[in-house]
Amino acid sequence: MTLPIGTPGGVATPAFNPLRKGLRMERTPPPCVMVIFGATGDLTHRKLLPALYNLALEHLLPEGFSVVGFARRPLDDAKFQQGILESINKFSRRRPVQPTVWEQFIKGIYYVSSDFTNLEGYQALAATLDKIDEERGTQGNRLFYLSTPPSDYEIIINNLGKAGLAKPQRPGSDAWTRIIIEKPFGHDLKSAQELNDVVAEVFRENQVFRIDHYLGKETVQNILVFRFGNSIFEPIWNRQFVDHIQIVVAEELGVEGRGPYYEESGTIRDMVQNHMMQLLSLVCMEPPVSYEANAIRDEKTQVLRSIKPLDADEVVERTVRGQYGPGTIFGKPVLGYRHEERVNPNSITDTYVAIKLFVENWRWAGVPIYLRTGKRLPKRTSEISLQFKPAPQQLFSPSGMPLEPNVLVLQIQPNEGISLKFGAKVPGQTMNIRPVTMDFRFGQSFGITAADAYERLILDAMLGDSTLFARRDEVEQAWSIVTSITDGWKLHMPPALPNYEAGTWGPKEADEFIQKDGRNWRRL
Amino acid sequence: MTLPIGTPGGVATPAFNPLRKGLRMERTPPPCVMVIFGATGDLTHRKLLPALYNLALEHLLPEGFSVVGFARRPLDDAKFQQGILESINKFSRRRPVQPTVWEQFIKGIYYVSSDFTNLEGYQALAATLDKIDEERGTQGNRLFYLSTPPSDYEIIINNLGKAGLAKPQRPGSDAWTRIIIEKPFGHDLKSAQELNDVVAEVFRENQVFRIDHYLGKETVQNILVFRFGNSIFEPIWNRQFVDHIQIVVAEELGVEGRGPYYEESGTIRDMVQNHMMQLLSLVCMEPPVSYEANAIRDEKTQVLRSIKPLDADEVVERTVRGQYGPGTIFGKPVLGYRHEERVNPNSITDTYVAIKLFVENWRWAGVPIYLRTGKRLPKRTSEISLQFKPAPQQLFSPSGMPLEPNVLVLQIQPNEGISLKFGAKVPGQTMNIRPVTMDFRFGQSFGITAADAYERLILDAMLGDSTLFARRDEVEQAWSIVTSITDGWKLHMPPALPNYEAGTWGPKEADEFIQKDGRNWRRL
Repeated sequence: MTLPIGTPGGVATPAFNPLRKGLRMERTPPPCVMVIFGATGDLTHRKLLPALYNLALEHLLPEGFSVVGFARRPLDDAKFQQGILESINKFSRRRPVQPTVWEQFIKGIYYVSSDFTNLEGYQALAATLDKIDEERGTQGNRLFYLSTPPSDYEIIINNLGKAGLAKPQRPGSDAWTRIIIEKPFGHDLKSAQELNDVVAEVFRENQVFRIDHYLGKETVQNILVFRFGNSIFEPIWNRQFVDHIQIVVAEELGVEGRGPYYEESGTIRDMVQNHMMQLLSLVCMEPPVSYEANAIRDEKTQVLRSIKPLDADEVVERTVRGQYGPGTIFGKPVLGYRHEERVNPNSITDTYVAIKLFVENWRWAGVPIYLRTGKRLPKRTSEISLQFKPAPQQLFSPSGMPLEPNVLVLQIQPNEGISLKFGAKVPGQTMNIRPVTMDFRFGQSFGITAADAYERLILDAMLGDSTLFARRDEVEQAWSIVTSITDGWKLHMPPALPNYEAGTWGPKEADEFIQKDGRNWRRL
Repeated sequence: MTLPIGTPGGVATPAFNPLRKGLRMERTPPPCVMVIFGATGDLTHRKLLPALYNLALEHLLPEGFSVVGFARRPLDDAKFQQGILESINKFSRRRPVQPTVWEQFIKGIYYVSSDFTNLEGYQALAATLDKIDEERGTQGNRLFYLSTPPSDYEIIINNLGKAGLAKPQRPGSDAWTRIIIEKPFGHDLKSAQELNDVVAEVFRENQVFRIDHYLGKETVQNILVFRFGNSIFEPIWNRQFVDHIQIVVAEELGVEGRGPYYEESGTIRDMVQNHMMQLLSLVCMEPPVSYEANAIRDEKTQVLRSIKPLDADEVVERTVRGQYGPGTIFGKPVLGYRHEERVNPNSITDTYVAIKLFVENWRWAGVPIYLRTGKRLPKRTSEISLQFKPAPQQLFSPSGMPLEPNVLVLQIQPNEGISLKFGAKVPGQTMNIRPVTMDFRFGQSFGITAADAYERLILDAMLGDSTLFARRDEVEQAWSIVTSITDGWKLHMPPALPNYEAGTWGPKEADEFIQKDGRNWRRL
């Protein structure tokens, strides 16, 4: 029997906080091996391995937990381990490495070098896994992680099947096999369906964990708690009280050397199909029958089903495309998109998009949901806001002008929190009313730095909890909406691009777009 | 023509606050004289004169504004002025006195020495008022302020009538005469009705301003703004969502030498009949048809009408009496009530009371409203809290135990503000939910120290705005509820008194009282 990874001495003890009293993290998964395909890639070293190390540091990994890196590059276990050490020291939110934890951690780290197309490599993997089961007691439990370019997904999945590595839980055994698949999951509705078919040939749906790291964020998970763990928000969470909803994901980064990927995807595939559709469905969903993966995913999928794909005319009316030109970010000049590395100098790819959608069900009929996302905006911020209708009677406004409406903001990043804007009387002799906010900040209140989303999600997959992963029908529904937009775009030229300067809040067309509805984008 | 009182140089400029941008205090009343009966008394020197001086400092008083002190003590104008200077330097929230403002202020200060019973004194007063009208241009506008013991009210009112000083606004003239009457307004329903009859013999109801300084507090005025200036609170402000309401006014002070007064009144007359009934009616009232004095007072009175007077059995079930014994406040030993100066050593007067009431209308039927107030409690605090029903489904509680309910707190004093308790996910791998609060603090947000309640109320009376004053029917309704309780108490002995130690949160009977309903007092 191996010892649990991590030692008490290695864990930082945060200052005492009464809100944390009595909390225990009682979710240790069974012993298992995680196999990372694309083990030498950027995501693996920046996110996955630091996440695993942090889990070890918090004693959340099972006894005997092991990692097998699988990639083309010829490395041995020691070299792979050395690379991991460097990555953790560079990217972990808790660095440098604690020697005692690290010593235990590397004992379970292995490397298999093989081309993804080569079946023999998978047979070597199978042998390594059997050996690990025997030596470290991992009991046949395997978690595969596809951290490769999407073009490799099909061959890896097929070879896992051929090598007999994809078997679902066998009767009479507790051993399980699961697969985490990174985004992008397809390029449009058709390719997503095809990829789902490939997966379904080899794995059962309950073995498949389509990851969207947005769902691992604390604030995103808190949307459900906020709505359904309290009694006072749900009564006003509907068309009778909500005027409209805004969901925004703004980045100040550009394409960061990923030109060829971005030329293919644009913002709509990179952000809207996955992250923003997830946020939208969590905010709009009905209460689920229980807090179980399929109960929640049933309701999320119902939201997406209630959004009708747009026809070509609707695409013109209800979307705005943008692309950044040269500009300034934090006082530093930056290139326009068309001048980025390996980008077509006449590219019409969207780096900004604004979309108006309607969830056509009993709760939300007639309430517009405005999505807005873009690269090279003035700052990185992500939030969901519900703007409420004005009070029915203007008691305090002699002119009859409505007071500023109530707005509830769920801030996803940075500074995760919730704030509520309401009108209050300004102290003084006259009845002056000004909007003020009540605020709640996660960091401040709990005194805990939230774990990285990958830590949460990898642990959930080991535990077999797919609540925070996308189901087949959910992914395809999201694609059917997004594909209706990209299809519409093919029929109509975009506005003259670039149409916004890097470092500004997007094209003027997007402002006009919401203003013609008598509304405005929230100032961020 | 006299200059406006106060000079720009005398006004402190608070740090710039964008929330205050564009605010102007445009409520200057017409020139007038304020006559204070009981001009040498404690209230006059502690509250009224400092309030007038502060209004002068803020340029809120009209040109030529004058004060006539009226009392028995033989003083001349100069001596009276000297006493005022001392009081302002001692009690004003802005001290010491600004010489330039003071110089203007004293020019309009006069004193008439007379016994209240002596009609000649009122004739002398009339002559002084005429002289002031002529010299300072106060145009016949008079504001009488009864700041005497209540036993003097009747004779003063009658003499004002006899001296021809009570005349309502005359046709063809803008001149007005108004009277502010201090609490206590009567001792029970019958005496309040009798006093109202005395007043009505001499004044019309629209000349009468029954003052309750609680209504001048910013947070109290903000109850209406919070409820009716926003669209999101009113939908849940009813029996469908609210489990119960608690209103608490706690004081750490004892009777402070006012033993004889307190022996007569007890907490129920001193606090419940006026302040707490006002808070209750503001929290429970329906939206008024407009923000005008009678529209608001109509709705407040309707709330009080919906509370049925208690019969003798109900008084036993729905009230708890308490009286403090010796104890400790802020580490300092203090006497029990029965040992206070001029208190009956066998007194059964209440210094603490807890009451459960029901507003029996469509909105509030079945929602208990718990009032709790007392002297010699551990600290001074006053708040209204609405506790909401639990969420209808326990999604996040595997045991089925409801999460902590949502609570909205309107903090009246100190630290005026609003906070909302709700459940949020504790950051981490498990679904732990803890109550957290969103907070709003007036002081912090507006960067203004709220004016003393008297400043607001005196200015309102000069402007003829009776919104924040009690109307005849309102006062009598409140007395009919309170008198039903005091009548019930006469039929039943109280528990053995004293029943709580000074410096504790009241008698154990009060805890049992709310616990038998399956509820608890909020921790303050």
